[in-house]
Amino acid sequence: MEIDISRPILARNDELAAANRKLLDTSRVFALDVLASPGAGKTTTILATIDRLRERYRIAVIEGDIASKVDAEKVKAHGIPAVQINTGGACHLEADMIARALGALPIDDLDLVIVENVGNLVCPTEFDLGQGARIVILSVPEGHDKPVKYPAIFAQADAIILNKYDTMHVFDFDEDEFRESVRKLNGAAPIFVISAKTGQGVDAWTDWLSERIDAARA
Amino acid sequence: MEIDISRPILARNDELAAANRKLLDTSRVFALDVLASPGAGKTTTILATIDRLRERYRIAVIEGDIASKVDAEKVKAHGIPAVQINTGGACHLEADMIARALGALPIDDLDLVIVENVGNLVCPTEFDLGQGARIVILSVPEGHDKPVKYPAIFAQADAIILNKYDTMHVFDFDEDEFRESVRKLNGAAPIFVISAKTGQGVDAWTDWLSERIDAARA
Repeated sequence: MEIDISRPILARNDELAAANRKLLDTSRVFALDVLASPGAGKTTTILATIDRLRERYRIAVIEGDIASKVDAEKVKAHGIPAVQINTGGACHLEADMIARALGALPIDDLDLVIVENVGNLVCPTEFDLGQGARIVILSVPEGHDKPVKYPAIFAQADAIILNKYDTMHVFDFDEDEFRESVRKLNGAAPIFVISAKTGQGVDAWTDWLSERIDAARA
Repeated sequence: MEIDISRPILARNDELAAANRKLLDTSRVFALDVLASPGAGKTTTILATIDRLRERYRIAVIEGDIASKVDAEKVKAHGIPAVQINTGGACHLEADMIARALGALPIDDLDLVIVENVGNLVCPTEFDLGQGARIVILSVPEGHDKPVKYPAIFAQADAIILNKYDTMHVFDFDEDEFRESVRKLNGAAPIFVISAKTGQGVDAWTDWLSERIDAARA
């Protein structure tokens, strides 16, 4: 006999995600779930996003990591509230972890919660957290073939960021092939080409995000 | 009531891994399990390894991917037998997948089987495949803080490769901090600094690997 244990786990997660979504909607807070490989530049992109939006919105960050609090400390050093979730080995965040983290944040005094998921292009895709949008960041050094090799995460993203664009001259990254493979998986998501380090392209990305934050507050 | 489902799954995997290890030992074949993030350069490192060792050893590759057969095709284009495992969403290889892949290879006519695991710094660590050695590849663009954030994989590696060393001038990678954090987790594993693309440092790595292949054949 085979027991499919993934189904009840995911169904329970979906229930908790729906409760998170309802809480966020009621509180008029937009939640952004950020997915990427380790080292794609999630934290740097989040910090660049905060720098551009902090005058207009009240922002907090939920940091998901296997271990360490390196990233939460970086965010706090920017004067932004951050909650660290250490999954203790688990390869993704789940809705119940987000529920607890939201409980630790002053949700009525926030406009935007950015969730930095565990660095992983596979596991987080199946777990809805209750976010308003989910984005995936790919960095140039990882190579243009990643959408073909990790299709689920690119298929479901609401926006795709290509980061570390300032290093294009160092790597054999075929941007046309990248865009074509993304389009086959996801016809709707915009692709933002940025360098979180130099600031190139970040405004177009934060304009897109601002529209969604404003809609959640309206 | 809570049921810990991970324990029986891992116990069954360990049994199958022991059977793989016995088959490999009896056949005097060395198996290398290669772990890394997506885009760290696993396939390029494997191809550089093959180029240096193919005159001395008979080599095959087992490619683990969520989807696609991009990497297996690259290996086959080098004239090396390759078996593609598509996990269909699973974030790591398991021992039973390796057992089936070994069954599809001419094991009596091989000296080295290289297993390219799914691109993931988290999930593969818990699953023994029966390998003779397990290595982790980190690439410079990913950043020096990855051992702190993904400690399990660095703690258990038999060797650690720092790849894309030719791009050190482009990134803020603190090599001393990287080495120090690795040493805290793993006092035994050598660190090989390489560029699989330019060939820098690859000979020292393949010398280490050759010693282990020779020991398995003796």
